[in-house]
Amino acid sequence: MKLFVTPASSFVRKVRISIFEIGIESEVEIIQTRWPHTWGFQTVPFRADFAEATPVGRIPALVTDDGIHLTDSSTICEYLNAEYGDYRLCPAVGAERWRILSVVSIANGLLEAQVARRAEKLRLSAGNPIEYSADFERKMLERQQRCYAALEEMAPSFGAAPDLGQIAVAAACGISDFRFADVWRPDTPQLAAWYDRFRERPSMRATEPQETPTEPDRVMPAAS
Amino acid sequence: MKLFVTPASSFVRKVRISIFEIGIESEVEIIQTRWPHTWGFQTVPFRADFAEATPVGRIPALVTDDGIHLTDSSTICEYLNAEYGDYRLCPAVGAERWRILSVVSIANGLLEAQVARRAEKLRLSAGNPIEYSADFERKMLERQQRCYAALEEMAPSFGAAPDLGQIAVAAACGISDFRFADVWRPDTPQLAAWYDRFRERPSMRATEPQETPTEPDRVMPAAS
Repeated sequence: MKLFVTPASSFVRKVRISIFEIGIESEVEIIQTRWPHTWGFQTVPFRADFAEATPVGRIPALVTDDGIHLTDSSTICEYLNAEYGDYRLCPAVGAERWRILSVVSIANGLLEAQVARRAEKLRLSAGNPIEYSADFERKMLERQQRCYAALEEMAPSFGAAPDLGQIAVAAACGISDFRFADVWRPDTPQLAAWYDRFRERPSMRATEPQETPTEPDRVMPAAS
Repeated sequence: MKLFVTPASSFVRKVRISIFEIGIESEVEIIQTRWPHTWGFQTVPFRADFAEATPVGRIPALVTDDGIHLTDSSTICEYLNAEYGDYRLCPAVGAERWRILSVVSIANGLLEAQVARRAEKLRLSAGNPIEYSADFERKMLERQQRCYAALEEMAPSFGAAPDLGQIAVAAACGISDFRFADVWRPDTPQLAAWYDRFRERPSMRATEPQETPTEPDRVMPAAS
């Protein structure tokens, strides 16, 4: 199967951590995509195979050998967990399934707020600075802070084995460290202690964020 | 269980259609929330029970009697389908599950683009108009158009019985009609023919969008 990625995307990282935890690295062809910084506010040119993989035009996108196209990180993680992972990252049924997916859904809210903050900042650096809204960025930061506070309460219930909830949370903590100047650890000591252990896993070490490849923008010059 | 809603949200509508299709209206307490138009770019005041239900601060949010908190529409639909619907809206395993979830994930991309367009427009009418980005709105419209084109290809494969994919697509078509001046039917005749039949279902009739309740904004005057 083919997975379209960039190395800076935390939504991609959820999928890549899951691939390592399930142990199917050799089954997945990783295809890099490039994103000029104008992605924050404009449609950017897509490579043809990526455009064919997903009409949404976001990463990650998965295309399986039997032609299934999945175009959001949580559905891709569920697919890999069910079809390759024997449900080891989340049970198929029952209360533990919903406990884990409730963690995933809070982590996804946090990840979406981080992406929206990043996109808003790109109006300043790569777009039309007057279109930047400090209010909107603050709204996203406040959502992020509420999610971190909720995850701090939940961290003591995280199991000893990795699951889809922990994987999503780890991707969020990782991008806070990599992309933002956020000082999140002091307010969430239990979460920070959990994360600083979890990040030592081989699946985390193998997927540490790196800068997104860019390419010359065909629409307007990318300033940074 | 308690479901936090507004009558204009298409993400809420996915859940409410599912509730009607499963036949559990009497099991769900519907709690209205209010959203001043500043929601597009500011954190708005939350009622205490809603803040307790979800740190993300978005609707829908579900709180079950045994204390499960789910804070995104797709997870809530999966929960209701599994725990109350005997998987009639999506099988628990197998190829048909992934076919349906691939439709859901494209529809969700479309729904998110619609919400982002709406939020951007609110900068014009309720916020600081210079912060409006026509580029960003166009990016979201182009995503929406790509998703509609993909769904046009998929519509002939929609089954005779409703499923979570069709429900998500119907919510997207419905909000295009209700909220936007989008003329989508001419470019997607197969999808339009399907939707104009599907929208006659009692579950659709019972959940037609209505304007979101607003309240006096404590931060700045809402202009429209």
